[in-house]
Amino acid sequence: MKICLFDNDRLGVVEGDVVRDVTPVLDWLPAYRGILPRHDPLVAALPDLMPAMRDAARTAPSKPVSAVRFLPPVAKPGKVVAAPVNYRAHLDEAIAEPETFSRAHVRQIQESGLFLKATSSIIGTSDPVRLRHTDRRNDHEIELVAIIGKAGTNITEADALSHVAGYTLGLDMTLRGPEERSFRKSGDSYTVLGPWMVTADEFGDPGDVDVALEVNGEPRQRANTRDLILSVRDLIVFASSFYTLHPGDVLMTGTPEGVGPVRPGDVMRASVGRVATVEVRVEAA
Amino acid sequence: MKICLFDNDRLGVVEGDVVRDVTPVLDWLPAYRGILPRHDPLVAALPDLMPAMRDAARTAPSKPVSAVRFLPPVAKPGKVVAAPVNYRAHLDEAIAEPETFSRAHVRQIQESGLFLKATSSIIGTSDPVRLRHTDRRNDHEIELVAIIGKAGTNITEADALSHVAGYTLGLDMTLRGPEERSFRKSGDSYTVLGPWMVTADEFGDPGDVDVALEVNGEPRQRANTRDLILSVRDLIVFASSFYTLHPGDVLMTGTPEGVGPVRPGDVMRASVGRVATVEVRVEAA
Repeated sequence: MKICLFDNDRLGVVEGDVVRDVTPVLDWLPAYRGILPRHDPLVAALPDLMPAMRDAARTAPSKPVSAVRFLPPVAKPGKVVAAPVNYRAHLDEAIAEPETFSRAHVRQIQESGLFLKATSSIIGTSDPVRLRHTDRRNDHEIELVAIIGKAGTNITEADALSHVAGYTLGLDMTLRGPEERSFRKSGDSYTVLGPWMVTADEFGDPGDVDVALEVNGEPRQRANTRDLILSVRDLIVFASSFYTLHPGDVLMTGTPEGVGPVRPGDVMRASVGRVATVEVRVEAA
Repeated sequence: MKICLFDNDRLGVVEGDVVRDVTPVLDWLPAYRGILPRHDPLVAALPDLMPAMRDAARTAPSKPVSAVRFLPPVAKPGKVVAAPVNYRAHLDEAIAEPETFSRAHVRQIQESGLFLKATSSIIGTSDPVRLRHTDRRNDHEIELVAIIGKAGTNITEADALSHVAGYTLGLDMTLRGPEERSFRKSGDSYTVLGPWMVTADEFGDPGDVDVALEVNGEPRQRANTRDLILSVRDLIVFASSFYTLHPGDVLMTGTPEGVGPVRPGDVMRASVGRVATVEVRVEAA
Protein backbone atom coordinates (compact mmCIF):
# COMPACT_ATOMS: atom_id res chain seq x y z
CA MET A 1 0.00 0.00 0.00
CA LYS A 2 1.15 3.54 -0.78
CA ILE A 3 0.24 5.87 2.08
CA CYS A 4 0.53 9.65 2.03
CA LEU A 5 -0.33 12.78 3.92
CA PHE A 6 -1.50 15.57 1.65
CA ASP A 7 -3.02 19.04 1.35
CA ASN A 8 -4.38 20.14 4.72
CA ASP A 9 -3.29 17.14 6.87
CA ARG A 10 -5.39 14.64 4.88
CA LEU A 11 -4.54 10.93 4.98
CA GLY A 12 -4.40 9.28 1.57
CA VAL A 13 -3.99 5.95 -0.16
CA VAL A 14 -2.31 6.25 -3.56
CA GLU A 15 -3.74 3.99 -6.28
CA GLY A 16 -2.31 4.53 -9.75
CA ASP A 17 -2.78 8.17 -10.65
CA VAL A 18 -5.15 9.08 -7.85
CA VAL A 19 -5.02 9.71 -4.13
CA ARG A 20 -8.01 8.39 -2.18
CA ASP A 21 -8.85 10.45 0.88
CA VAL A 22 -9.22 8.10 3.86
CA THR A 23 -8.86 10.80 6.53
CA PRO A 24 -11.90 9.57 8.55
CA VAL A 25 -9.82 6.50 9.54
CA LEU A 26 -7.81 8.84 11.82
CA ASP A 27 -10.84 8.90 14.14
CA TRP A 28 -9.76 5.43 15.26
CA LEU A 29 -6.65 6.88 16.90
CA PRO A 30 -6.41 8.30 20.44
CA ALA A 31 -6.56 12.08 20.87
CA TYR A 32 -3.70 13.91 22.58
CA ARG A 33 -4.09 17.27 24.26
CA GLY A 34 -0.99 19.23 25.30
CA ILE A 35 1.17 16.25 26.20
CA LEU A 36 2.15 14.40 23.06
CA PRO A 37 3.75 10.97 22.77
CA ARG A 38 7.35 10.79 21.54
CA HIS A 39 6.60 8.38 18.71
CA ASP A 40 4.41 8.92 15.66
CA PRO A 41 1.02 7.43 16.60
CA LEU A 42 -0.20 7.03 13.02
CA VAL A 43 2.82 5.01 11.90
CA ALA A 44 2.63 2.96 15.10
CA ALA A 45 -1.01 2.07 14.38
CA LEU A 46 -0.57 1.19 10.70
CA PRO A 47 -0.78 -2.61 11.11
CA ASP A 48 -4.23 -2.13 12.69
CA LEU A 49 -5.32 0.71 10.41
CA MET A 50 -4.34 -0.69 7.02
CA PRO A 51 -7.40 -2.96 6.63
CA ALA A 52 -9.67 -0.01 7.48
CA MET A 53 -7.76 2.22 5.06
CA ARG A 54 -8.17 -0.38 2.32
CA ASP A 55 -11.91 -0.58 2.98
CA ALA A 56 -12.30 3.18 3.13
CA ALA A 57 -10.34 3.64 -0.10
CA ARG A 58 -13.00 1.70 -2.05
CA THR A 59 -15.58 4.43 -1.66
CA ALA A 60 -13.36 7.40 -0.74
CA PRO A 61 -13.30 10.62 -2.75
CA SER A 62 -10.22 10.85 -4.92
CA LYS A 63 -7.96 13.50 -6.39
CA PRO A 64 -5.39 13.17 -9.18
CA VAL A 65 -1.81 12.75 -7.91
CA SER A 66 -0.88 15.74 -10.05
CA ALA A 67 -3.31 17.99 -8.15
CA VAL A 68 -2.14 17.05 -4.67
CA ARG A 69 0.37 18.78 -2.41
CA PHE A 70 2.28 15.94 -0.79
CA LEU A 71 3.28 16.50 2.82
CA PRO A 72 6.05 14.40 4.43
CA PRO A 73 4.71 10.83 4.83
CA VAL A 74 5.53 10.91 8.56
CA ALA A 75 3.99 13.89 10.34
CA LYS A 76 6.18 14.00 13.44
CA PRO A 77 9.12 11.62 13.59
CA GLY A 78 10.85 11.48 16.95
CA LYS A 79 14.20 11.50 15.20
CA VAL A 80 15.77 11.48 11.77
CA VAL A 81 18.78 9.15 11.78
CA ALA A 82 21.08 9.40 8.79
CA ALA A 83 24.08 7.48 7.54
CA PRO A 84 27.23 9.36 6.59
CA VAL A 85 29.32 8.15 3.70
CA ASN A 86 27.78 4.70 3.13
CA TYR A 87 28.69 3.88 -0.47
CA ARG A 88 32.28 2.93 -1.23
CA ALA A 89 32.45 5.09 -4.37
CA HIS A 90 31.16 8.15 -2.44
CA LEU A 91 33.86 7.58 0.17
CA ASP A 92 36.42 7.54 -2.64
CA GLU A 93 35.17 10.84 -4.08
CA ALA A 94 35.23 12.42 -0.60
CA ILE A 95 38.83 11.32 -0.11
CA ALA A 96 39.74 12.78 -3.52
CA GLU A 97 38.28 16.25 -2.77
CA PRO A 98 39.64 17.47 0.57
CA GLU A 99 38.72 21.08 -0.18
CA THR A 100 35.00 20.16 -0.23
CA PHE A 101 34.75 17.29 2.21
CA SER A 102 35.94 17.79 5.76
CA ARG A 103 38.20 15.27 7.48
CA ALA A 104 35.14 13.79 9.18
CA HIS A 105 33.96 12.65 5.75
CA VAL A 106 36.78 10.32 5.02
CA ARG A 107 36.22 8.05 7.98
CA GLN A 108 34.45 4.72 7.85
CA ILE A 109 30.82 4.81 8.89
CA GLN A 110 31.54 2.28 11.64
CA GLU A 111 33.86 4.83 13.22
CA SER A 112 31.91 8.04 12.61
CA GLY A 113 28.60 6.54 13.64
CA LEU A 114 25.24 7.78 12.41
CA PHE A 115 24.07 11.36 12.73
CA LEU A 116 20.80 13.17 13.40
CA LYS A 117 18.93 15.71 11.31
CA ALA A 118 16.44 18.12 12.89
CA THR A 119 12.82 17.09 12.42
CA SER A 120 12.13 20.78 11.69
CA SER A 121 14.13 20.31 8.47
CA ILE A 122 11.55 17.95 6.93
CA ILE A 123 9.39 18.92 3.95
CA GLY A 124 7.32 16.93 1.47
CA THR A 125 8.29 16.55 -2.17
CA SER A 126 5.80 19.17 -3.40
CA ASP A 127 7.61 21.97 -1.63
CA PRO A 128 10.84 23.64 -2.73
CA VAL A 129 14.19 23.20 -1.02
CA ARG A 130 15.13 26.66 0.19
CA LEU A 131 18.88 27.15 0.48
CA ARG A 132 20.07 29.26 3.35
CA HIS A 133 23.81 29.85 3.17
CA THR A 134 24.07 30.34 -0.59
CA ASP A 135 27.60 31.73 -0.25
CA ARG A 136 28.65 28.14 0.56
CA ARG A 137 28.24 24.95 -1.43
CA ASN A 138 24.89 23.18 -0.98
CA ASP A 139 24.71 19.61 -2.31
CA HIS A 140 21.99 17.18 -3.32
CA GLU A 141 22.06 13.70 -1.79
CA ILE A 142 19.46 11.17 -2.96
CA GLU A 143 18.75 8.29 -0.59
CA LEU A 144 16.52 5.33 0.10
CA VAL A 145 14.73 5.98 3.40
CA ALA A 146 13.24 3.45 5.82
CA ILE A 147 10.49 4.44 8.25
CA ILE A 148 10.52 2.54 11.53
CA GLY A 149 7.18 0.94 12.43
CA LYS A 150 7.89 -0.92 15.65
CA ALA A 151 9.95 0.11 18.67
CA GLY A 152 13.13 -1.77 19.37
CA THR A 153 16.55 -1.59 20.93
CA ASN A 154 19.54 -3.87 20.38
CA ILE A 155 17.66 -5.25 17.40
CA THR A 156 19.18 -8.36 15.84
CA GLU A 157 20.04 -8.71 12.19
CA ALA A 158 17.37 -11.39 11.80
CA ASP A 159 14.65 -9.11 13.22
CA ALA A 160 15.81 -5.82 11.70
CA LEU A 161 13.55 -5.60 8.66
CA SER A 162 10.47 -6.52 10.71
CA HIS A 163 10.88 -3.13 12.41
CA VAL A 164 10.35 -1.23 9.15
CA ALA A 165 6.86 0.12 8.40
CA GLY A 166 7.75 1.23 4.89
CA TYR A 167 10.12 3.00 2.57
CA THR A 168 10.23 6.37 0.93
CA LEU A 169 12.46 8.65 -1.11
CA GLY A 170 14.71 11.13 0.64
CA LEU A 171 16.94 14.06 -0.17
CA ASP A 172 19.54 14.77 2.48
CA MET A 173 20.38 18.32 1.45
CA THR A 174 23.81 19.26 2.70
CA LEU A 175 25.56 22.52 3.40
CA ARG A 176 29.31 21.90 3.05
CA GLY A 177 31.65 23.26 5.67
CA PRO A 178 33.40 22.53 8.95
CA GLU A 179 30.37 22.18 11.25
CA GLU A 180 29.06 18.85 12.53
CA ARG A 181 26.66 17.18 10.17
CA SER A 182 23.75 17.50 12.59
CA PHE A 183 24.06 21.29 12.30
CA ARG A 184 24.75 21.98 8.64
CA LYS A 185 22.28 19.35 7.34
CA SER A 186 19.39 20.53 9.54
CA GLY A 187 18.31 23.75 7.83
CA ASP A 188 14.59 24.15 7.21
CA SER A 189 13.66 22.15 4.06
CA TYR A 190 17.01 20.27 4.03
CA THR A 191 15.25 16.92 4.51
CA VAL A 192 12.85 16.08 1.69
CA LEU A 193 10.71 12.97 2.20
CA GLY A 194 8.00 11.47 0.04
CA PRO A 195 5.89 11.62 -1.94
CA TRP A 196 4.45 8.64 -0.08
CA MET A 197 5.47 5.65 2.01
CA VAL A 198 5.40 2.24 0.31
CA THR A 199 4.59 -0.25 3.05
CA ALA A 200 7.26 -2.87 3.67
CA ASP A 201 5.02 -5.80 2.57
CA GLU A 202 4.58 -4.22 -0.87
CA PHE A 203 8.10 -2.81 -1.21
CA GLY A 204 10.06 -6.02 -0.80
CA ASP A 205 13.87 -6.19 -0.67
CA PRO A 206 15.57 -2.89 0.30
CA GLY A 207 18.88 -4.39 -0.84
CA ASP A 208 18.18 -3.99 -4.55
CA VAL A 209 16.79 -0.52 -5.16
CA ASP A 210 17.88 1.91 -7.86
CA VAL A 211 18.42 5.50 -6.75
CA ALA A 212 19.13 8.33 -9.17
CA LEU A 213 19.20 12.09 -9.36
CA GLU A 214 19.44 14.62 -12.17
CA VAL A 215 19.85 18.38 -11.89
CA ASN A 216 18.29 20.40 -14.72
CA GLY A 217 18.27 17.24 -16.84
CA GLU A 218 21.94 16.44 -16.23
CA PRO A 219 22.58 13.02 -14.62
CA ARG A 220 24.43 13.35 -11.31
CA GLN A 221 23.85 10.29 -9.13
CA ARG A 222 22.96 6.73 -10.15
CA ALA A 223 23.45 3.68 -7.96
CA ASN A 224 21.79 0.67 -6.41
CA THR A 225 21.42 -0.03 -2.72
CA ARG A 226 23.24 -3.33 -3.20
CA ASP A 227 26.39 -1.18 -3.02
CA LEU A 228 25.63 0.19 0.45
CA ILE A 229 28.49 -0.41 2.90
CA LEU A 230 25.95 -0.95 5.71
CA SER A 231 22.65 -2.35 4.43
CA VAL A 232 19.26 -1.26 5.81
CA ARG A 233 19.44 -4.31 8.06
CA ASP A 234 22.96 -3.37 9.28
CA LEU A 235 21.94 0.24 9.87
CA ILE A 236 19.01 -0.79 12.07
CA VAL A 237 21.28 -3.08 14.10
CA PHE A 238 23.92 -0.33 14.41
CA ALA A 239 21.48 2.47 15.31
CA SER A 240 19.60 0.38 17.85
CA SER A 241 22.85 -0.60 19.56
CA PHE A 242 23.09 3.08 20.60
CA TYR A 243 19.42 4.05 21.16
CA THR A 244 15.87 2.82 20.89
CA LEU A 245 14.19 3.21 17.52
CA HIS A 246 10.55 4.28 17.80
CA PRO A 247 7.61 4.15 15.37
CA GLY A 248 7.93 7.03 12.94
CA ASP A 249 11.69 7.36 13.29
CA VAL A 250 13.22 8.03 9.90
CA LEU A 251 16.36 6.20 8.76
CA MET A 252 18.16 7.76 5.80
CA THR A 253 20.50 5.17 4.36
CA GLY A 254 23.22 7.36 2.86
CA THR A 255 23.89 8.75 -0.58
CA PRO A 256 26.00 7.31 -3.40
CA GLU A 257 28.75 8.97 -5.39
CA GLY A 258 28.00 11.91 -7.67
CA VAL A 259 26.97 14.48 -5.06
CA GLY A 260 27.28 17.99 -6.35
CA PRO A 261 26.06 21.53 -5.83
CA VAL A 262 22.63 22.96 -6.50
CA ARG A 263 21.69 26.62 -6.74
CA PRO A 264 18.47 28.60 -6.55
CA GLY A 265 16.54 28.05 -9.77
CA ASP A 266 17.70 24.44 -10.23
CA VAL A 267 15.27 21.55 -10.51
CA MET A 268 16.24 18.16 -9.03
CA ARG A 269 14.66 15.08 -10.58
CA ALA A 270 15.04 12.38 -7.94
CA SER A 271 14.01 8.77 -8.08
CA VAL A 272 14.01 5.79 -5.78
CA GLY A 273 12.96 2.52 -7.40
CA ARG A 274 9.56 1.12 -6.35
CA VAL A 275 8.76 4.45 -4.65
CA ALA A 276 8.57 7.30 -7.16
CA THR A 277 10.30 9.87 -9.32
CA VAL A 278 9.76 13.46 -8.22
CA GLU A 279 10.84 16.92 -9.27
CA VAL A 280 11.89 19.22 -6.48
CA ARG A 281 12.65 22.89 -7.04
CA VAL A 282 15.56 24.71 -5.43
CA GLU A 283 15.05 28.28 -4.24
CA ALA A 284 16.81 30.74 -1.96
CA ALA A 285 15.45 30.97 1.59
CA MET B 1 6.30 30.16 37.93
CA LYS B 2 7.76 26.65 38.23
CA ILE B 3 6.00 24.27 35.86
CA CYS B 4 6.42 20.51 35.79
CA LEU B 5 5.04 17.33 34.28
CA PHE B 6 4.82 14.53 36.80
CA ASP B 7 3.63 11.03 37.60
CA ASN B 8 1.22 9.85 34.90
CA ASP B 9 1.39 12.87 32.53
CA ARG B 10 0.03 15.30 35.12
CA LEU B 11 0.66 19.04 34.76
CA GLY B 12 1.92 20.72 37.92
CA VAL B 13 2.80 24.08 39.42
CA VAL B 14 5.57 23.85 42.03
CA GLU B 15 5.11 26.06 45.09
CA GLY B 16 7.68 25.60 47.84
CA ASP B 17 7.67 21.94 48.82
CA VAL B 18 4.48 20.94 47.02
CA VAL B 19 3.34 20.29 43.48
CA ARG B 20 -0.18 21.51 42.70
CA ASP B 21 -1.98 19.40 40.11
CA VAL B 22 -3.42 21.72 37.46
CA THR B 23 -3.93 19.02 34.81
CA PRO B 24 -7.52 20.13 33.98
CA VAL B 25 -6.02 23.24 32.36
CA LEU B 26 -4.84 20.99 29.51
CA ASP B 27 -8.48 20.81 28.36
CA TRP B 28 -7.98 24.31 26.98
CA LEU B 29 -5.59 22.94 24.35
CA PRO B 30 -6.53 21.52 20.94
CA ALA B 31 -6.70 17.74 20.57
CA TYR B 32 -4.56 15.99 17.98
CA ARG B 33 -5.40 12.62 16.50
CA GLY B 34 -2.80 10.75 14.44
CA ILE B 35 -1.18 13.78 12.85
CA LEU B 36 0.77 15.70 15.47
CA PRO B 37 2.26 19.18 15.21
CA ARG B 38 6.06 19.48 15.11
CA HIS B 39 6.26 21.87 18.05
CA ASP B 40 5.27 21.28 21.66
CA PRO B 41 1.71 22.65 21.96
CA LEU B 42 1.81 23.02 25.74
CA VAL B 43 4.96 25.17 25.75
CA ALA B 44 3.60 27.19 22.83
CA ALA B 45 0.42 27.95 24.78
CA LEU B 46 2.08 28.87 28.08
CA PRO B 47 1.61 32.65 27.78
CA ASP B 48 -2.15 32.05 27.49
CA LEU B 49 -2.27 29.20 29.99
CA MET B 50 -0.24 30.65 32.85
CA PRO B 51 -3.04 32.82 34.28
CA ALA B 52 -5.37 29.80 34.26
CA MET B 53 -2.67 27.64 35.87
CA ARG B 54 -2.18 30.25 38.58
CA ASP B 55 -5.93 30.31 39.24
CA ALA B 56 -6.22 26.54 39.24
CA ALA B 57 -3.26 26.18 41.60
CA ARG B 58 -5.12 28.05 44.34
CA THR B 59 -7.58 25.22 44.84
CA ALA B 60 -5.73 22.33 43.22
CA PRO B 61 -4.87 19.11 45.06
CA SER B 62 -1.21 19.01 46.03
CA LYS B 63 1.51 16.45 46.60
CA PRO B 64 4.88 16.86 48.32
CA VAL B 65 7.76 17.40 45.89
CA SER B 66 9.48 14.45 47.57
CA ALA B 67 6.61 12.11 46.60
CA VAL B 68 6.48 13.06 42.95
CA ARG B 69 8.09 11.39 39.95
CA PHE B 70 9.24 14.29 37.78
CA LEU B 71 8.93 13.76 34.03
CA PRO B 72 10.90 15.93 31.59
CA PRO B 73 9.37 19.43 31.71
CA VAL B 74 8.86 19.37 27.92
CA ALA B 75 6.90 16.34 26.77
CA LYS B 76 7.88 16.28 23.11
CA PRO B 77 10.50 18.74 21.95
CA GLY B 78 10.95 18.92 18.22
CA LYS B 79 14.70 19.02 18.68
CA VAL B 80 17.35 19.11 21.35
CA VAL B 81 20.10 21.53 20.31
CA ALA B 82 23.31 21.37 22.32
CA ALA B 83 26.48 23.41 22.47
CA PRO B 84 29.83 21.64 22.24
CA VAL B 85 32.77 22.93 24.25
CA ASN B 86 31.40 26.32 25.32
CA TYR B 87 33.49 27.20 28.39
CA ARG B 88 37.08 28.26 27.83
CA ALA B 89 38.41 26.13 30.71
CA HIS B 90 36.61 23.03 29.34
CA LEU B 91 38.20 23.65 25.95
CA ASP B 92 41.60 23.80 27.69
CA GLU B 93 41.02 20.47 29.45
CA ALA B 94 39.92 18.86 26.18
CA ILE B 95 43.08 20.06 24.44
CA ALA B 96 45.16 18.66 27.31
CA GLU B 97 43.67 15.14 27.12
CA PRO B 98 43.81 13.94 23.51
CA GLU B 99 43.33 10.31 24.52
CA THR B 100 39.83 11.12 25.86
CA PHE B 101 38.65 13.96 23.68
CA SER B 102 38.54 13.46 19.92
CA ARG B 103 39.97 16.04 17.55
CA ALA B 104 36.48 17.43 17.01
CA HIS B 105 36.51 18.55 20.63
CA VAL B 106 39.34 20.96 20.38
CA ARG B 107 37.73 23.20 17.82
CA GLN B 108 36.02 26.47 18.60
CA ILE B 109 32.24 26.28 18.88
CA GLN B 110 31.89 28.82 16.07
CA GLU B 111 33.61 26.32 13.76
CA SER B 112 32.09 23.07 14.98
CA GLY B 113 28.56 24.46 15.19
CA LEU B 114 25.88 23.12 17.48
CA PHE B 115 24.80 19.49 17.57
CA LEU B 116 21.57 17.57 18.06
CA LYS B 117 20.63 14.99 20.67
CA ALA B 118 17.82 12.48 20.03
CA THR B 119 14.55 13.40 21.72
CA SER B 120 14.28 9.71 22.64
CA SER B 121 17.25 10.25 24.98
CA ILE B 122 15.30 12.55 27.32
CA ILE B 123 14.33 11.51 30.84
CA GLY B 124 13.19 13.44 33.91
CA THR B 125 15.36 13.89 36.97
CA SER B 126 13.55 11.19 38.98
CA ASP B 127 14.72 8.43 36.69
CA PRO B 128 18.18 6.90 36.59
CA VAL B 129 20.70 7.41 33.83
CA ARG B 130 21.28 3.99 32.34
CA LEU B 131 24.72 3.62 30.76
CA ARG B 132 24.91 1.54 27.65
CA HIS B 133 28.50 1.06 26.51
CA THR B 134 30.07 0.61 29.93
CA ASP B 135 33.30 -0.67 28.38
CA ARG B 136 33.87 2.94 27.29
CA ARG B 137 34.08 6.13 29.31
CA ASN B 138 30.73 7.79 30.09
CA ASP B 139 30.89 11.36 31.40
CA HIS B 140 28.63 13.71 33.31
CA GLU B 141 28.05 17.18 31.87
CA ILE B 142 25.94 19.62 33.88
CA GLU B 143 24.34 22.47 31.92
CA LEU B 144 21.91 25.35 32.07
CA VAL B 145 19.11 24.63 29.59
CA ALA B 146 16.80 27.10 27.84
CA ILE B 147 13.41 26.01 26.51
CA ILE B 148 12.22 27.90 23.44
CA GLY B 149 8.73 29.38 23.76
CA LYS B 150 8.21 31.24 20.51
CA ALA B 151 9.14 30.25 16.96
CA GLY B 152 11.81 32.24 15.21
CA THR B 153 14.49 32.15 12.57
CA ASN B 154 17.41 34.54 12.05
CA ILE B 155 16.63 35.86 15.51
CA THR B 156 18.50 39.03 16.45
CA GLU B 157 20.55 39.44 19.59
CA ALA B 158 18.09 42.03 20.89
CA ASP B 159 15.14 39.64 20.48
CA ALA B 160 16.86 36.41 21.49
CA LEU B 161 15.80 36.14 25.13
CA SER B 162 12.18 36.95 24.28
CA HIS B 163 12.08 33.54 22.52
CA VAL B 164 12.79 31.67 25.75
CA ALA B 165 9.81 30.20 27.66
CA GLY B 166 11.91 29.14 30.62
CA TYR B 167 14.99 27.47 31.99
CA THR B 168 15.78 24.11 33.47
CA LEU B 169 18.65 21.91 34.61
CA GLY B 170 20.22 19.49 32.15
CA LEU B 171 22.69 16.64 32.12
CA ASP B 172 24.23 16.00 28.72
CA MET B 173 25.49 12.48 29.38
CA THR B 174 28.30 11.65 27.01
CA LEU B 175 29.80 8.45 25.74
CA ARG B 176 33.42 9.20 24.76
CA GLY B 177 34.76 7.88 21.50
CA PRO B 178 35.23 8.66 17.83
CA GLU B 179 31.59 8.91 16.71
CA GLU B 180 29.80 12.18 15.98
CA ARG B 181 28.31 13.78 19.05
CA SER B 182 24.75 13.36 17.78
CA PHE B 183 25.27 9.57 17.91
CA ARG B 184 27.21 8.95 21.09
CA LYS B 185 25.25 11.49 23.19
CA SER B 186 21.83 10.20 22.13
CA GLY B 187 21.52 6.96 24.09
CA ASP B 188 18.24 6.43 25.95
CA SER B 189 18.42 8.43 29.25
CA TYR B 190 21.51 10.40 28.12
CA THR B 191 19.59 13.70 28.31
CA VAL B 192 18.28 14.47 31.79
CA LEU B 193 15.98 17.51 32.07
CA GLY B 194 14.17 18.93 35.05
CA PRO B 195 12.88 18.74 37.62
CA TRP B 196 10.78 21.67 36.39
CA MET B 197 10.91 24.67 34.11
CA VAL B 198 11.32 28.08 35.74
CA THR B 199 9.54 30.52 33.48
CA ALA B 200 11.74 33.24 31.97
CA ASP B 201 9.94 36.09 33.79
CA GLU B 202 10.76 34.52 37.18
CA PHE B 203 14.23 33.22 36.24
CA GLY B 204 15.83 36.49 35.23
CA ASP B 205 19.33 36.78 33.76
CA PRO B 206 20.70 33.54 32.25
CA GLY B 207 24.14 35.14 32.18
CA ASP B 208 24.80 34.75 35.89
CA VAL B 209 23.82 31.24 36.94
CA ASP B 210 25.85 28.86 39.09
CA VAL B 211 26.10 25.28 37.84
CA ALA B 212 27.69 22.50 39.83
CA LEU B 213 27.95 18.73 39.95
CA GLU B 214 29.22 16.23 42.50
CA VAL B 215 29.64 12.48 42.07
CA ASN B 216 29.22 10.43 45.26
CA GLY B 217 29.85 13.59 47.27
CA GLU B 218 33.04 14.52 45.43
CA PRO B 219 32.96 17.94 43.72
CA ARG B 220 33.57 17.66 39.97
CA GLN B 221 32.16 20.69 38.15
CA ARG B 222 31.56 24.21 39.42
CA ALA B 223 31.16 27.25 37.21
CA ASN B 224 28.98 30.21 36.36
CA THR B 225 27.32 30.89 33.03
CA ARG B 226 29.09 34.24 32.87
CA ASP B 227 32.06 32.19 31.59
CA LEU B 228 30.17 30.77 28.60
CA ILE B 229 31.99 31.45 25.33
CA LEU B 230 28.62 31.87 23.57
CA SER B 231 25.90 33.18 25.92
CA VAL B 232 22.29 32.00 25.79
CA ARG B 233 21.57 35.03 23.63
CA ASP B 234 24.49 34.21 21.28
CA LEU B 235 23.43 30.55 21.05
CA ILE B 236 19.90 31.48 20.00
CA VAL B 237 21.24 33.83 17.34
CA PHE B 238 23.70 31.17 16.12
CA ALA B 239 21.18 28.29 16.10
CA SER B 240 18.47 30.29 14.39
CA SER B 241 20.89 31.38 11.65
CA PHE B 242 20.87 27.71 10.59
CA TYR B 243 17.28 26.62 11.32
CA THR B 244 13.99 27.73 12.81
CA LEU B 245 13.60 27.30 16.56
CA HIS B 246 10.13 26.11 17.54
CA PRO B 247 8.22 26.17 20.85
CA GLY B 248 9.45 23.30 22.99
CA ASP B 249 12.87 23.09 21.35
CA VAL B 250 15.51 22.50 24.00
CA LEU B 251 18.78 24.42 23.99
CA MET B 252 21.56 22.94 26.14
CA THR B 253 24.17 25.62 26.68
CA GLY B 254 27.31 23.53 27.13
CA THR B 255 29.18 22.17 30.12
CA PRO B 256 32.09 23.70 32.05
CA GLU B 257 35.43 22.14 32.96
CA GLY B 258 35.60 19.19 35.32
CA VAL B 259 33.82 16.58 33.23
CA GLY B 260 34.66 13.08 34.31
CA PRO B 261 33.47 9.51 34.23
CA VAL B 262 30.51 7.96 36.02
CA ARG B 263 29.85 4.28 36.57
CA PRO B 264 26.81 2.19 37.49
CA GLY B 265 26.11 2.71 41.19
CA ASP B 266 27.24 6.35 41.23
CA VAL B 267 24.96 9.16 42.34
CA MET B 268 25.25 12.56 40.66
CA ARG B 269 24.20 15.60 42.66
CA ALA B 270 23.56 18.30 40.09
CA SER B 271 22.52 21.87 40.59
CA VAL B 272 21.64 24.85 38.45
CA GLY B 273 21.10 28.09 40.34
CA ARG B 274 17.52 29.38 40.56
CA VAL B 275 16.28 26.01 39.22
CA ALA B 276 17.07 23.17 41.63
CA THR B 277 19.51 20.67 43.03
CA VAL B 278 18.74 17.05 42.18
CA GLU B 279 20.23 13.62 42.77
CA VAL B 280 20.32 11.34 39.75
CA ARG B 281 21.34 7.71 40.01
CA VAL B 282 23.58 5.98 37.46
CA GLU B 283 22.80 2.38 36.50
CA ALA B 284 23.75 -0.03 33.75
CA ALA B 285 21.25 -0.32 30.90
